[in-house]
Amino acid sequence: MRYKQIFSRTSKNVPADEKSRNAQLLIRAGYVNKVMAGVYNYTPLGLLVLEKIKQIVRQEMDAIGGQELLMSSLQKKSTWQKTDRWDDQKVDVWFKSKLKDGGTEVGFGWSHEEPIIEMIQQYLNSYKDLPINVYQFQNKMRNELRAKSGIMRGREFLMKDMYSCSLDETQHQQFYNSVIEAYNRIFDRLGIGEDTFVTFASGGAFTDFSHEFQTICSAGEDYIYLSKDRKIAINDEIMSPEILDKFKLTIDDFERVKTAEVGNIFNFGRHKSEQMKFKFTDKDGQEKPVHLGSYGIGISRVMGVIVEKFADDKGLIWPEQIAPYQVYLIGIGEQQKAEEIYQKLLAAGIEVLYDDRDLRPGQKFADAELIGIPYRLITSDKLGHKIEVLKRQTGEVEQLTFDQLVDRINGRK
Amino acid sequence: MRYKQIFSRTSKNVPADEKSRNAQLLIRAGYVNKVMAGVYNYTPLGLLVLEKIKQIVRQEMDAIGGQELLMSSLQKKSTWQKTDRWDDQKVDVWFKSKLKDGGTEVGFGWSHEEPIIEMIQQYLNSYKDLPINVYQFQNKMRNELRAKSGIMRGREFLMKDMYSCSLDETQHQQFYNSVIEAYNRIFDRLGIGEDTFVTFASGGAFTDFSHEFQTICSAGEDYIYLSKDRKIAINDEIMSPEILDKFKLTIDDFERVKTAEVGNIFNFGRHKSEQMKFKFTDKDGQEKPVHLGSYGIGISRVMGVIVEKFADDKGLIWPEQIAPYQVYLIGIGEQQKAEEIYQKLLAAGIEVLYDDRDLRPGQKFADAELIGIPYRLITSDKLGHKIEVLKRQTGEVEQLTFDQLVDRINGRK
Repeated sequence: MRYKQIFSRTSKNVPADEKSRNAQLLIRAGYVNKVMAGVYNYTPLGLLVLEKIKQIVRQEMDAIGGQELLMSSLQKKSTWQKTDRWDDQKVDVWFKSKLKDGGTEVGFGWSHEEPIIEMIQQYLNSYKDLPINVYQFQNKMRNELRAKSGIMRGREFLMKDMYSCSLDETQHQQFYNSVIEAYNRIFDRLGIGEDTFVTFASGGAFTDFSHEFQTICSAGEDYIYLSKDRKIAINDEIMSPEILDKFKLTIDDFERVKTAEVGNIFNFGRHKSEQMKFKFTDKDGQEKPVHLGSYGIGISRVMGVIVEKFADDKGLIWPEQIAPYQVYLIGIGEQQKAEEIYQKLLAAGIEVLYDDRDLRPGQKFADAELIGIPYRLITSDKLGHKIEVLKRQTGEVEQLTFDQLVDRINGRK
Repeated sequence: MRYKQIFSRTSKNVPADEKSRNAQLLIRAGYVNKVMAGVYNYTPLGLLVLEKIKQIVRQEMDAIGGQELLMSSLQKKSTWQKTDRWDDQKVDVWFKSKLKDGGTEVGFGWSHEEPIIEMIQQYLNSYKDLPINVYQFQNKMRNELRAKSGIMRGREFLMKDMYSCSLDETQHQQFYNSVIEAYNRIFDRLGIGEDTFVTFASGGAFTDFSHEFQTICSAGEDYIYLSKDRKIAINDEIMSPEILDKFKLTIDDFERVKTAEVGNIFNFGRHKSEQMKFKFTDKDGQEKPVHLGSYGIGISRVMGVIVEKFADDKGLIWPEQIAPYQVYLIGIGEQQKAEEIYQKLLAAGIEVLYDDRDLRPGQKFADAELIGIPYRLITSDKLGHKIEVLKRQTGEVEQLTFDQLVDRINGRK
């Protein structure tokens, strides 16, 4: 892609009310554009990152047998009344409106637990139909009182939500464990695996604990007690002498670190199924409530966490797997050499952003750093047929031939 | 995919209030699930079709230089007040709600014309930045009084909306024409090209006419006057003696046919840019308003039109390019042969739905017809190593070897 063809531009201007570092950087670099607190548009550059994150998550959800579907945002009052979660006193993030036709109240989906049950209910008969594991990428609406964390806590945000319907605890647990493994693979591929920990947190209706995936991040809103050696993490909100007893550890075995929640998984048990009469006929001919689980990853939230974690004082730093482009190409002086390298990179299947603007090299260097693409390439007469390669993450500089460069980017050297 | 792994099932039950044929068929075949009038969930089967349509549209939008982005659904009152389109008296399809934080009114996007201008405004300076042509796939919300046409007219629906910003009429017209060509290619690829006509319709603020893409369809809501020979179509709503004079034709040169609008394109001129102060600095140093165009295709609507157009009394018939799977595989008697063919089809890269349910063949035949996949395959002892291939569209039956089958599906014979 030629930079001239992208309409978004780097900018020094950030809306005065934007206090979050991730949103400030993403706005300055031209990835997002602020509509109101907690609501952002994604420019072509920003959408590329979002889609790459989605694709990694999609692959891992498919690999464990997830079926992708798409639920509506508009939801019925009657659906949520079954579990007493329509009332604003019970759920404080509802956006609601009214149909022109008759004035019926409708809600905009902040979650899809109840609607998904109501839908699958229409197809489920026998134990033979189970398990059913479905997921979607859905634009969630949450009427947050405090939307001050940029794309980490949106009033509107993209979420991957998955739901599992199992016939019993054993079938449930098997899938639950496969999701933990899939999530670990996802966070590895997103470049935050080393700093992301499965964390015990306050449970749902059914279990003592739920599991959160918490990533060490100074912009996070949570604290966890972490024992890296033992691979145990406990959310601050449930830390107690009883918990320590349970794990036969003392508080000194842990360090307390600030984290951002990047995923959560819940074992709902059968409570909600009973409330909603979500049942199947078991082998023995008895009607039984379905065993439920739910599994979330905030796609745009994770993007925000990655920004916060890796950015430096010069700008963004994207992990290679989710960078909008792999290389940022700048030609010093005559553009002929850069044009030639641009075409060769395209032919080699490398995602390249070619800064073809009529600007001083210094401005392009600054923008390359702000935009945070993994490799910055420079061509110039002085370099001959070599290309200067600067790795954004480390600042390391090398001069490589084109073939060496391709090998480097493809990870072969 | 094995049918057992798909949770949606064919069904004889359709909600009593569902009067639209496209929704009835899609619900019976397990593609969509009704939430309320004009609001549907897409099952994995339905999402496959939707995504295939999107991908065809995406490729053609990229091919003419479109940049994909993603705008928020939540919109600000102030944005729409600039063009006096916030008021419910002016726009009658708004869904609105209030922020918990302060009670500020917000709207849910039924269109993105004004928001897109407000966004691009922040990046646009000079004539050198133009043209800018952007598009998105967006979940639109429209508070329709009458949502009685299934997925053809949703309160919530998936739309591809594109916007063009040009520096003058010439630049605008060049892009406008390229969109007409791209739309023609899209409707060809979607299998409705022969029956889709560029139609003169009532214009926007700037031009005498806008252009609609109208597809002959008995479930449509429009009528057009069509001269197939002359490739001229005129929307019923603007037909008049003056129009006939303009084209130097008489009413007898046309047939009046019922159609469904599948796309529309508008030349907005500079009026909206002036209202919103959306300007650029031209070569001569003067500030000038941007020349605007907008170009829509209702993705879910087109899916509904395709259902209505091709379905017969046995069920759906999908054009090959957008069918969720290319073949529907049924094994009579022992499943070993069918299992083997299933694996070979997967290895050959053919999208196959294998009906591995423990049901009578008659039930599977009926479901294959209802679900509408292009080729139904049967294996059985009687057939030996041949496979019976029934083409859903024509009813034509052949017995082919596996290699002949692959050639047939890949269109080589």
